Amino acid sequence: MKGFASDNYSGAHPEVLTAMLEANGAHTAAYGADPWSDRARELLRAHFGEQAQSFLVWNGTGANVCILRAMCRPWQAVVCAASAHINVDEGGAPEFLVGTKLLDLPTPDGKLTPELVERAVIRVGDEHAVQARVISVTQSTELGTLYTVEELRALADFAHARGMYLHVDGARLANAAAALGLPLRAFTTDAGVDAVSFGGTKNGMVSGEAVVLLAPELAEGFPWIRKQSMQLASKGRFLAAQFVAMLEGDLWLRSAQHSNAMGARLAAAVGEIPGVRITQAAQANVVFAILDPAVTARLQEEWPFYVWDEASGEVRWMCSWDTTPEEVDAFAAAITSKFAAPD
Amino acid sequence: MKGFASDNYSGAHPEVLTAMLEANGAHTAAYGADPWSDRARELLRAHFGEQAQSFLVWNGTGANVCILRAMCRPWQAVVCAASAHINVDEGGAPEFLVGTKLLDLPTPDGKLTPELVERAVIRVGDEHAVQARVISVTQSTELGTLYTVEELRALADFAHARGMYLHVDGARLANAAAALGLPLRAFTTDAGVDAVSFGGTKNGMVSGEAVVLLAPELAEGFPWIRKQSMQLASKGRFLAAQFVAMLEGDLWLRSAQHSNAMGARLAAAVGEIPGVRITQAAQANVVFAILDPAVTARLQEEWPFYVWDEASGEVRWMCSWDTTPEEVDAFAAAITSKFAAPD
Amino acid sequence: MKGFASDNYSGAHPEVLTAMLEANGAHTAAYGADPWSDRARELLRAHFGEQAQSFLVWNGTGANVCILRAMCRPWQAVVCAASAHINVDEGGAPEFLVGTKLLDLPTPDGKLTPELVERAVIRVGDEHAVQARVISVTQSTELGTLYTVEELRALADFAHARGMYLHVDGARLANAAAALGLPLRAFTTDAGVDAVSFGGTKNGMVSGEAVVLLAPELAEGFPWIRKQSMQLASKGRFLAAQFVAMLEGDLWLRSAQHSNAMGARLAAAVGEIPGVRITQAAQANVVFAILDPAVTARLQEEWPFYVWDEASGEVRWMCSWDTTPEEVDAFAAAITSKFAAPD
Amino acid sequence: MKGFASDNYSGAHPEVLTAMLEANGAHTAAYGADPWSDRARELLRAHFGEQAQSFLVWNGTGANVCILRAMCRPWQAVVCAASAHINVDEGGAPEFLVGTKLLDLPTPDGKLTPELVERAVIRVGDEHAVQARVISVTQSTELGTLYTVEELRALADFAHARGMYLHVDGARLANAAAALGLPLRAFTTDAGVDAVSFGGTKNGMVSGEAVVLLAPELAEGFPWIRKQSMQLASKGRFLAAQFVAMLEGDLWLRSAQHSNAMGARLAAAVGEIPGVRITQAAQANVVFAILDPAVTARLQEEWPFYVWDEASGEVRWMCSWDTTPEEVDAFAAAITSKFAAPD
Repeated sequence: MKGFASDNYSGAHPEVLTAMLEANGAHTAAYGADPWSDRARELLRAHFGEQAQSFLVWNGTGANVCILRAMCRPWQAVVCAASAHINVDEGGAPEFLVGTKLLDLPTPDGKLTPELVERAVIRVGDEHAVQARVISVTQSTELGTLYTVEELRALADFAHARGMYLHVDGARLANAAAALGLPLRAFTTDAGVDAVSFGGTKNGMVSGEAVVLLAPELAEGFPWIRKQSMQLASKGRFLAAQFVAMLEGDLWLRSAQHSNAMGARLAAAVGEIPGVRITQAAQANVVFAILDPAVTARLQEEWPFYVWDEASGEVRWMCSWDTTPEEVDAFAAAITSKFAAPD
Repeated sequence: MKGFASDNYSGAHPEVLTAMLEANGAHTAAYGADPWSDRARELLRAHFGEQAQSFLVWNGTGANVCILRAMCRPWQAVVCAASAHINVDEGGAPEFLVGTKLLDLPTPDGKLTPELVERAVIRVGDEHAVQARVISVTQSTELGTLYTVEELRALADFAHARGMYLHVDGARLANAAAALGLPLRAFTTDAGVDAVSFGGTKNGMVSGEAVVLLAPELAEGFPWIRKQSMQLASKGRFLAAQFVAMLEGDLWLRSAQHSNAMGARLAAAVGEIPGVRITQAAQANVVFAILDPAVTARLQEEWPFYVWDEASGEVRWMCSWDTTPEEVDAFAAAITSKFAAPD
Repeated sequence: MKGFASDNYSGAHPEVLTAMLEANGAHTAAYGADPWSDRARELLRAHFGEQAQSFLVWNGTGANVCILRAMCRPWQAVVCAASAHINVDEGGAPEFLVGTKLLDLPTPDGKLTPELVERAVIRVGDEHAVQARVISVTQSTELGTLYTVEELRALADFAHARGMYLHVDGARLANAAAALGLPLRAFTTDAGVDAVSFGGTKNGMVSGEAVVLLAPELAEGFPWIRKQSMQLASKGRFLAAQFVAMLEGDLWLRSAQHSNAMGARLAAAVGEIPGVRITQAAQANVVFAILDPAVTARLQEEWPFYVWDEASGEVRWMCSWDTTPEEVDAFAAAITSKFAAPD
Repeated sequence: MKGFASDNYSGAHPEVLTAMLEANGAHTAAYGADPWSDRARELLRAHFGEQAQSFLVWNGTGANVCILRAMCRPWQAVVCAASAHINVDEGGAPEFLVGTKLLDLPTPDGKLTPELVERAVIRVGDEHAVQARVISVTQSTELGTLYTVEELRALADFAHARGMYLHVDGARLANAAAALGLPLRAFTTDAGVDAVSFGGTKNGMVSGEAVVLLAPELAEGFPWIRKQSMQLASKGRFLAAQFVAMLEGDLWLRSAQHSNAMGARLAAAVGEIPGVRITQAAQANVVFAILDPAVTARLQEEWPFYVWDEASGEVRWMCSWDTTPEEVDAFAAAITSKFAAPD
């Protein structure tokens, strides 16, 4: 039985591993100058538009930090939600490597709006204050919510009117595409996004994220940023082959649709359990809920998952590309049973 | 036909990929809290000694930089050979992330000695000058040469007498073990080395290096250094399973012995070709030689390899775990033929 | 007529300039190895206790950043009030130079409490999260409020119980001493503070702040931190002579007592003006108040001062060592007249 | 009797201190928005040309680092002489704050040439290698030598042809102007220099250097660079008033001419002493010489000066704006006497 701790607890999709095996064998140029890397870049252009300049990196923190290094000088600042991964789960890498301040804003649902961002775009031109340069959003968010195309467009317009950039942390961008029922470019490139990370790991890869730069000037120094940030793989074919496996057909979408469906199934099932209060719209592959901490504790003895907020008792239940309907149902049944009677 | 450009041009050993496939499947804890990671740490202790605290990272630059971050504050400096990978091939990552100055010393053979290092350990206690804190050597070196146990011990003693650390960049540590005919700990832990990176990628892995900390105080903040340096893999089992495949039996040693043997075969073969002058002792898996640039150019049309020094015409011929004797012989024959007559 | 914009708008006390003139003349060793610097260190020990190790620097941002560099590694974090100078007025220097995240907490009065700080000391031991290492408070605060000895002691105890440090930004430490009626050490050294900056500039010096380290281990690398942070004055005698002038007698205290008295006089005078609402306890040399923005605008045409919060209409009126009672009275009268009738 | 240790051992010229006294008194805007700062900027434009955008900072390291931060991203590198102040005397501040690598080249006389620089402008476009972006020279050099206008022009042309900048560390720029007999702009602005620091401290100020930006794009983010680098003075009038005193008339030039003349007098005097070998052309205010270390030791008991190179016995004798002919003659006589007979 799998748990609901994290989509990082799952392994890799068999098709991804098969692609790595097939990429093995002969010698090929290192550092991304190989045919698999060429093909991955081509596929990313097909999905994000011809202007998309892409660079593969090891992980999500690496993708975000490299993009922010391209967008910011150290006296410029990044506006983000207080719940953003860059703010709370990257070990201070953005501050350390970009040298910049994150202007983090509390939100009810993990989503920024122009009205919220405006509070952080202050003291413009004042040399004593960092200058807001980037709006960074996560799609789908860390709280499992979604930005609509219109909401992203509004943020992009707000940013561009002030000489700022819009960055999307897309560790779960595939889940957003699946949930919105839109091609990737519709809510990135076509919505005015300047750069996006396109996550592979959580969606069934061994490892690997794609940095997709849409504002052309961001690419200028990017090869050096990636290298200096220690995110350049030597045997680049193995990162690239995974992305080719994901993007050549619809594996990326199928996997995300499935984990979203499991999230919805779980939300539906637990929403009916008295004592469980769902706290966020379960729009992607995760459910947030508040329940009795004593029940949580008993449940965690059998099913791994994380408490999100000790104070409120809020928990996070994350579905993955390999979560099965049976597991969802068994988990919901377990919750019910833990309420019914202590073991 | 493969070339002699880089051991990064080769793919992964089939046993490594098989191990990744076998590690796939169930859910397991992320970020190194899985059984494969436990086993990898156990095996690394078996090879390097019980005090070895190990951390897997993505790549060699990541391993070196994380170790140096543990050893240095930004006003402390790292003494290294001018030819060191950290000095010329890591895109300035050490300066950027450690914040420190590299005190690089010219050497004839890529090797530091206490006499050389002494030149950089100056102005001790002078607040205007960076203070040498680390001696960093590469084993086997970027020039294919080797440190003996005694040479490493002398550097360690020199370092420790001055409150300094000895770091070994072991991107090709397996080749050194094979060439010296010694267990790994004999020329690291037992020689007084404080921390070593143990390379996997060049020796037949998909990716992955192990940071092995031998001075216990270095481990204190290391989990945060690794995370903040963006070197923590989420699906850690896939890095760990590769190391288990390498270290459980003797795959790591077999592969290194083979690439060394190919290096020796190549050195022997080309050493007899008039017009080819071998410039470094070919003690590991690489041959450096000077030959007529016109010959080099004709040869590169068919066989990929790198010119190391445009000025002198020195080239680098690197053998890999998958280089065959036939390829070595064919390459040596091709060199001879290129000298004989322009195509 | 002087305004109420900033204590940085005032010049230097004549006794300070006289001391600089007297220090001029002969040759003396540079970089703090001169008799004036010796004497300044001696006087700082007299005021802060024998364990006080002091280092003079150029300015307040320099003092704060150097102390935080001594206290933190980049993955450790600094807990501070959202209104702290380090958080909003140092151009992102703490993030850039320390590499660290500031965990800024909203407060009603610019003051931290153990209860507030506790919210930021979370995820201890979690490698994905920065680890709170320093509590940083300002005394007197940016909002003109004061910590009592007991409040500081409680923060120090909280910090030390968790392996953390307590830092005091003392840009206006003299004002706090004057307001509390206590010697400097009573609410720093004796209250468990680990390091404090002791401000000179705002209190009547040309420039210069003293870093006073009370936890002995902080001094170990400090000469290099100061130099590398570009805060080491070459003709150190001129910084030191100013501090000697301040501390040899009671100039530091007289000046602070005077500016505090002017703050109190101003608070008393404007507190009676209908339409002016004082928003913070005016415990030091500054008054915060909310009044009609139209009145503010008319007033600023004649008297320079800053609007603190555009949204609420809150303004800041700062008194200096050279503010006169006549100026305070004239300013209060001007406020009254601006309410009475538009010019 | 003064020594020959450093021009930082001297105090401030009385006219400078008088100017500070005269700037004292009334309230004025802080952070460089005062009339003295306006006047200093105006005078710097008069000396360096209308395009000169200037920013006052605390010290020479601050000036150099701020300029390099404006010129470089962290993966770009700075080519300098091995003897450059930024390379050996700034405590690693350039690496730490700019994040960059210094590509330091050995020189016989502290001077770079296009031929020398060319060796460091390698691997252009190679993402594994830092990319040379700045040529940094010192005028007059740390070894007391001078660049001619033609030499500087050649370096500027070399730089600009490769998209690089030319930076001049002008801690002793006034000495260069005096020695060349040229206006400041003739060998900076008019020679193609992109940015220069114009030193005040060593030439008789209390403290203060001017950053003079000549390539207009460098000024864009400079106010934030200065603030974030902790180089923005709050009571800016006191830095500015000193520069006004220096530049309003010819104090800057008179002082430099005098210290140069003392340097020449010293070189002439000691050049005739058997056993003293002058090692560098004494073109500015300093003399380098090799003599018997035993003589050096006896001499240092009475006259402070620095040994430059322990290995060779080379010493540095620095003259200042306040060095007198009598002191030069007495020092030369002392050298002769120390050779004659041990005390």
